[in-house]
Amino acid sequence: MRYERTHDCGTLTAKAIGKRVLLAGWVHRRRDHGGLIFIDLRDRFGVTQIVFHPETDAALHERAGALRSEWVIAVEGEVVSRGPGMSNPKLSTGEIEVNVTHMRLLSEAKTPPFSICDESLNVGEELRLKYRYLDIRRGKVSRALEVRHQAMLAARNFLDQQNFLEITTPVLGKSTPEGARDYLVPSRVYPGNFFALPQSPQLFKQILMISGMDRYFQIATCFRDEDLRADRQPEFSQIDIEMSFGRPETLFPIIEQMMDAIFQKCLDRGLQTPFRHLTYAEAIEAYGTDKPDLRFEMPLVRIDALAARSEFSVFKEQLALGGVIKGLCVKGGASASRKKIEEYTSFVGKQGAKGLAWIKIQPEGPTSSIVKFFDPDLLSEIVHTMNGEAGDLLLFVASDATTTNSALDHLRRHIAHEMELIEEDSFALAWITDFPLFTWDAESDNFACEHHPFTSPHAEDLALLDSDPLQVRSSSYDLVLNGYELGSGSQRIHDSDLQEKIFGLLKLSKATIEERFGFFTEALRYGTPPHLGIALGLDRLIMILTGAKSLREVIAFPKTQRATDLMTEAPSAVMQEQLTELKIHVELPE
Amino acid sequence: MRYERTHDCGTLTAKAIGKRVLLAGWVHRRRDHGGLIFIDLRDRFGVTQIVFHPETDAALHERAGALRSEWVIAVEGEVVSRGPGMSNPKLSTGEIEVNVTHMRLLSEAKTPPFSICDESLNVGEELRLKYRYLDIRRGKVSRALEVRHQAMLAARNFLDQQNFLEITTPVLGKSTPEGARDYLVPSRVYPGNFFALPQSPQLFKQILMISGMDRYFQIATCFRDEDLRADRQPEFSQIDIEMSFGRPETLFPIIEQMMDAIFQKCLDRGLQTPFRHLTYAEAIEAYGTDKPDLRFEMPLVRIDALAARSEFSVFKEQLALGGVIKGLCVKGGASASRKKIEEYTSFVGKQGAKGLAWIKIQPEGPTSSIVKFFDPDLLSEIVHTMNGEAGDLLLFVASDATTTNSALDHLRRHIAHEMELIEEDSFALAWITDFPLFTWDAESDNFACEHHPFTSPHAEDLALLDSDPLQVRSSSYDLVLNGYELGSGSQRIHDSDLQEKIFGLLKLSKATIEERFGFFTEALRYGTPPHLGIALGLDRLIMILTGAKSLREVIAFPKTQRATDLMTEAPSAVMQEQLTELKIHVELPE
Repeated sequence: MRYERTHDCGTLTAKAIGKRVLLAGWVHRRRDHGGLIFIDLRDRFGVTQIVFHPETDAALHERAGALRSEWVIAVEGEVVSRGPGMSNPKLSTGEIEVNVTHMRLLSEAKTPPFSICDESLNVGEELRLKYRYLDIRRGKVSRALEVRHQAMLAARNFLDQQNFLEITTPVLGKSTPEGARDYLVPSRVYPGNFFALPQSPQLFKQILMISGMDRYFQIATCFRDEDLRADRQPEFSQIDIEMSFGRPETLFPIIEQMMDAIFQKCLDRGLQTPFRHLTYAEAIEAYGTDKPDLRFEMPLVRIDALAARSEFSVFKEQLALGGVIKGLCVKGGASASRKKIEEYTSFVGKQGAKGLAWIKIQPEGPTSSIVKFFDPDLLSEIVHTMNGEAGDLLLFVASDATTTNSALDHLRRHIAHEMELIEEDSFALAWITDFPLFTWDAESDNFACEHHPFTSPHAEDLALLDSDPLQVRSSSYDLVLNGYELGSGSQRIHDSDLQEKIFGLLKLSKATIEERFGFFTEALRYGTPPHLGIALGLDRLIMILTGAKSLREVIAFPKTQRATDLMTEAPSAVMQEQLTELKIHVELPE
Repeated sequence: MRYERTHDCGTLTAKAIGKRVLLAGWVHRRRDHGGLIFIDLRDRFGVTQIVFHPETDAALHERAGALRSEWVIAVEGEVVSRGPGMSNPKLSTGEIEVNVTHMRLLSEAKTPPFSICDESLNVGEELRLKYRYLDIRRGKVSRALEVRHQAMLAARNFLDQQNFLEITTPVLGKSTPEGARDYLVPSRVYPGNFFALPQSPQLFKQILMISGMDRYFQIATCFRDEDLRADRQPEFSQIDIEMSFGRPETLFPIIEQMMDAIFQKCLDRGLQTPFRHLTYAEAIEAYGTDKPDLRFEMPLVRIDALAARSEFSVFKEQLALGGVIKGLCVKGGASASRKKIEEYTSFVGKQGAKGLAWIKIQPEGPTSSIVKFFDPDLLSEIVHTMNGEAGDLLLFVASDATTTNSALDHLRRHIAHEMELIEEDSFALAWITDFPLFTWDAESDNFACEHHPFTSPHAEDLALLDSDPLQVRSSSYDLVLNGYELGSGSQRIHDSDLQEKIFGLLKLSKATIEERFGFFTEALRYGTPPHLGIALGLDRLIMILTGAKSLREVIAFPKTQRATDLMTEAPSAVMQEQLTELKIHVELPE
């Protein structure tokens, strides 16, 4: 008997009744009932119920009796109606079943270490990763991989329509240690020399603009040898984009339309464009973070001036120290118990805030332990400034700006989850612009780049490069989705003198510049168009689109947090001959 | 003045006359003529002639006078007709020019080390690779990159329509030394352990079939640390495909339609399907090679039985030694000079053939030094068997089968090029099937795989595995295009017992199997569908589609034959700290 299917297991409907079909797939579930054997036959496309009748073929019925979970079979038979009251509306094939007349066993299966058919079963992640092929069969990961495929294809087709070309840049690149650690690859031809796996195609894509390629993209695999935080992967994918002769205002609608195309393809719904815009300063001020979750409001409100007029020493001391007082208005939060407020206080304590002041706006007026430090007019000014109404709870942190912002950002999101303020399946996208060009790096006692050293300073701030570099804004932008930084980009420096000036401020020596970026600064001198770009985290996007809890759920074969592949057991020891050829030697501690 | 274009440099036609436009690009060519300055302004999309009139703006005209090749400018002006007799039919924009009223200099350029505008100029490859960004501007590489983009997108969209999902497999994989050398990546977290860059996603794609993903593809970057032959790259791209529940006959039309879609998109022409089929044995017999160039015929003809009846001792001795006598019929070749035939003889000599017998079919009858060894009837039988006609030249090699086939294969292609038998822009695709499963590897004194150890033996030859493994054909297939092996694939082994038997014949110890493939042989036991696949060389395909002479012409940033990137100077030395962290030490020879 052949095994080439006439249909997949998700296709047959009542229209096919009477047809002879050939299906193939895995034994998903089996039920023996009244002498009949019912099997849910599964493939990537769905599940079809097949039935073995003893009277059709006794020997076949006996063979069917021996089938076990996850065995692979091909069956031939006739499509019949399940009969009234027997259909399963949850299945695309729920109206029919197939009366099997022939069966071929294609492959037996050992008993899986966990159930495939019970998706809700909570299986330890180590076991799932070791048997990834069984985990994928369970459905959740395979659906994420399907969305991932759709998203990549939608992005590619959209960018193609916009005249972007997908150009593959090298994986075997040059080590330019910046930011994260490079993964290194020893060269056999030039012993003692190494390639590095790219942390991003940044320089290559800028070189492509210098090459006149005008509009480039790539779904690029990038690598970082980091100590993996909760949810990072040593190799990850980004939708990498660069264009010439444009400005951020040229790029924004392109990315917005691309995101819309991806959402349409994957979720069958569009996005509202243009996206909201916030400067970095505005985002920090109103949400305490540069990646605010905008699916709900509850902004941070600064009350420095009002607090200064109070008698509350905690506030006044912080102001004297140069700190800030900011608060949140929790709508309908006035019913919070003392215990709940203590819990909030302890929550912000973990973010470094020494206390949490609160005011409940009761029908009879504001109450709280600190009310007495504020005269009634001042109090009502505060309530008004915070948009407070009867029934609301106001929460305040007084500390240095960083701590205050961080504590209230965390508290804001915590309360939103707790109070279920976030609409399910809602997506809030925003551009955050005008980041500072530099931050101050205490360790190296020097400027460090907020983005990377190829980011253009804001045109209006060029003069500040000499007088006050930390005040210089960059011509950069992040795309934020539901509180995640989905992407980051900038207008690039296209002037070699300005590029050298930035390298100078970073205190890179001429020798270091030459060694690491010499080819690039040279290239800049041969006619470089103004250009800009962005890189969007594909894994993160798919995670958000599918509602997955971790990047590991949307990558076919992810690494663990210790950067290992539990299925193949990589990394692994290699043969001594391999190392000898590379002229490298491993020096293990005793 | 802004620099955001209203049009690119390949767009403006007579329809735009009278419009004000803003263009940006590179100064391609400049001509000063009658007080006017004409500049060909270039971007990726084309060239537009712009004109600076002294009377429009004397200062502007003077600034235009300072422009040099490859400077980047933006210009604003009015589209005007070039006037009768002045249009350039070779350019899409040849009917118009732009009278410039405003100009912004965006970037100056150093004098390039070679001319950008003269594409015909022969520039040394080292210089071109060092200044790849300038080389790309010259047009040839950028056009190849555009075709590459189109081909990738056409393949992706076609495979998507056929329900294949693109799934990314890991780059940081496990070292399973087979065939070529692995590139290794030291693990920092587990010192002394290494990742390997994939030589292909073979095991992962088979695991995806075991995962139930059914139809997978990926445009995958693969890596081989080989001593690079004439035209290999350490990293290369393949269109990698795998499907379940199919047979070669299921896969062939899919690949044929995909190729057709690629040709339609890239060259605006379809392919004749189905492709020609030849078994390995037929290909060797008729063309002396398993990758015949079928753009022309001129088959090899075996005349063993006829030669045995001659008195020609050279032929008879070879037959006695177990050799073969095969010949070519060169249509219209009878006019070849003695010198030409000597040249052919020396040509086959380089392939190991000790001599080349020849017969010219003159109007008066066959002539040659060996005619006297054949009686006239035998001679006319030979001429008839070879499809010889008056005016043809017959050439014969007598040697062992390998030498005879190789010599005549090379000679056949040599003569076809010399006599221009190959139609320009013609493409001949064919499937070569039924390769031997094993070859004999003299060095290891054991069987080696012709394809790879996961290739299924031909169903009809299973019994031979025990009795005569070298006679076993595999269920494999190559796709051949114009004499290049474009792709290679097979039905895979989906039975774990058979897989172990093959590993056994390859004399892999249980420990080695377990160490290298343990996860895979384990996976095979959990319900593996019959599956098969193919991998097609993308770089090679683009090379053939664009008529390029080398893979380096169709890769944006290729490596040299010494596996270096001349532009970035990778590989390079790295900082000692990086090696210390990895616990590796380089041992250079004194």
